[in-house]
Amino acid sequence: MMGEGSSNNNINKEYGLGVSRGISIIDIVLRIIAMLGTFGSAVAMGTTEETLPSSNFSTQAAAGVLFQAQYDDIPTFRFFVIANAVVCGYLAFSLPLSIYHIVMIRTSKKSANTRALLIFLDTIMLGVVSAGASAAAAIVYIAHKGNSSANWVAICQQYQEFCEKITGSLIGSFAAALIFVLLIPLSALVLSRHHH
Amino acid sequence: MMGEGSSNNNINKEYGLGVSRGISIIDIVLRIIAMLGTFGSAVAMGTTEETLPSSNFSTQAAAGVLFQAQYDDIPTFRFFVIANAVVCGYLAFSLPLSIYHIVMIRTSKKSANTRALLIFLDTIMLGVVSAGASAAAAIVYIAHKGNSSANWVAICQQYQEFCEKITGSLIGSFAAALIFVLLIPLSALVLSRHHH
Repeated sequence: MMGEGSSNNNINKEYGLGVSRGISIIDIVLRIIAMLGTFGSAVAMGTTEETLPSSNFSTQAAAGVLFQAQYDDIPTFRFFVIANAVVCGYLAFSLPLSIYHIVMIRTSKKSANTRALLIFLDTIMLGVVSAGASAAAAIVYIAHKGNSSANWVAICQQYQEFCEKITGSLIGSFAAALIFVLLIPLSALVLSRHHH
Repeated sequence: MMGEGSSNNNINKEYGLGVSRGISIIDIVLRIIAMLGTFGSAVAMGTTEETLPSSNFSTQAAAGVLFQAQYDDIPTFRFFVIANAVVCGYLAFSLPLSIYHIVMIRTSKKSANTRALLIFLDTIMLGVVSAGASAAAAIVYIAHKGNSSANWVAICQQYQEFCEKITGSLIGSFAAALIFVLLIPLSALVLSRHHH
């Protein structure tokens, strides 16, 4: 046991721990940004509604139906809010675990299991947030452009404020998806360095 | 150096290599299934079109617009086909690399970099396939149910065959997303075992 601890090895080990610690700090910062992103997306979408003065509908045949727009008229937007809330909650729960990993960085065997668990859960959450963001984006696209083949009219000319808000709410969600794409390989990298 | 090679250690090492090899074989099988899934999805969606006999439109005001339905009338479906084709192509390219990892399983240091690369690319592809599948699912949902608030009519009563095919084409894509959620933690697990 004593023979392995040559001074050169120790320097390498300290350097390796420093790199792992650096990555772990980046990990925490990225998690906080993603948490804020999904929180912002959920709140922005969840508070979106627009009521139009009835005079706007003089030329609209279906006036009775279209005088108010709310995010939860469209089930995909409800899914978007739930997906972002779930991912935001998960990120809040994962933060203490990430901090624990920095504290336990010298006793790598103990934290290997929780690191692997975090990679697994991160991967699921990437799927969830990417699904929510993309599904909402597909509907936002129809809201902006409509689709003549399917006879779906663009609703954004009428509901400008509504459309701006639902479009903007996608940003935080896509940013979170992008962050997960960075987080997962970074975690794998730290896990692979455990036994160097 | 010689002192480390006790018989007990060797047995543990062989056992560890066996587990890693087992996971690597599962990895290849899952990749092939995901490849077939995305291929099937791309082809099923890409070949979807339906022409209705004009007599169906006697009661339809917008008859002129609605007499043919094709997948690429809806940009989201075009994105779905491209996303699945890209992921299918990537999986085909990743197979030789996975086989290389089984061959090189005893010289773990050499393959650690390509394994890490594969985790990074797998993560991106999970984002792409999940985005494609969810965006298409959001549109398929509108096609089935319509949305009264936005005045979007359900088109599936008219285009039954079209709708069955686009709905079915989602399966392979969602299956591939699910497989990536398994593949990524498995790869991380093998990577973490490299230096045991």
